[in-house]
Amino acid sequence: MIMDVKPLGIINTPFTESTGTPIQPRMAHGALGTVEVFDEYVPGLKDIEGFERIWLLFWCHQAASPKLHVKPYMDTREHGLFTTRAPARPNPIGISSVRLLEVKENILKVADVDMLDGTPLLDIKPYAPKFDCFEVQRCGWLDTVNNHSGLADNRFEQTRNIKEDNK
Amino acid sequence: MIMDVKPLGIINTPFTESTGTPIQPRMAHGALGTVEVFDEYVPGLKDIEGFERIWLLFWCHQAASPKLHVKPYMDTREHGLFTTRAPARPNPIGISSVRLLEVKENILKVADVDMLDGTPLLDIKPYAPKFDCFEVQRCGWLDTVNNHSGLADNRFEQTRNIKEDNK
Repeated sequence: MIMDVKPLGIINTPFTESTGTPIQPRMAHGALGTVEVFDEYVPGLKDIEGFERIWLLFWCHQAASPKLHVKPYMDTREHGLFTTRAPARPNPIGISSVRLLEVKENILKVADVDMLDGTPLLDIKPYAPKFDCFEVQRCGWLDTVNNHSGLADNRFEQTRNIKEDNK
Repeated sequence: MIMDVKPLGIINTPFTESTGTPIQPRMAHGALGTVEVFDEYVPGLKDIEGFERIWLLFWCHQAASPKLHVKPYMDTREHGLFTTRAPARPNPIGISSVRLLEVKENILKVADVDMLDGTPLLDIKPYAPKFDCFEVQRCGWLDTVNNHSGLADNRFEQTRNIKEDNK
């Protein structure tokens, strides 16, 4: 089975490095971005302006190699990777529910972005509370942490290529 | 940039064809499944039993070729693909929040499954209302539909290979 993904567009955000980037849309304080959808996929946007929020699926293109035990941004203890939303994953796919503000042809203006500038878009899905909201009583280690800035540092960022830095 | 994904495991469910498969976890009435995580990724499950729900990201391996205008399961009208959760997408990646019932080594017993048996697992993320639940006022065409069975038919399923059928 061939399982390769292709970019359907590019997500533009104010964030050029991990440090200082919101770690989730909820912590993004309305940060504005645009999703540039490649022309061939624009017909798939029909009726999207009716949705207040949309899921963006994206490729964490600047993420470091995966580690299976990580100290997530929000904790000082190590946890299993799959109990965290850390970007450094075997398949570095992120999911973020962003607010859809405006649609102009192939450009979606969105708020609450939490990804790096230039991130490849993999998919757009409608966000619907009836599909996506569930009450839960237990959220593992996430229940024990508070008081986090909501901003990332560079712990999961790819090491820069030294040759490029020296150019 | 290389963007290929690999299976981290296999999702086993009671559903061997699209017809009759729940279209979302919310409509799955607790349907039971198991996630078999491949051995090399098991360390990443550390602490996962503390989470009541988890996101499964998966490859819709039986989905038909993508169409950019589709009649979704829940409507008789055509909509842009990206306003639907139809599996036939340019990057056929599904996201489902399932209930985590039990963890035994590399096997996760889960409820509310809505994918086909044998679906390749791409990622597991913790489900957290503080990250994933947003109130919205508008859900586009989804606000106008009701009274759906919550079960899929075969409209987005790959046509079977005739040679294989004749074997």
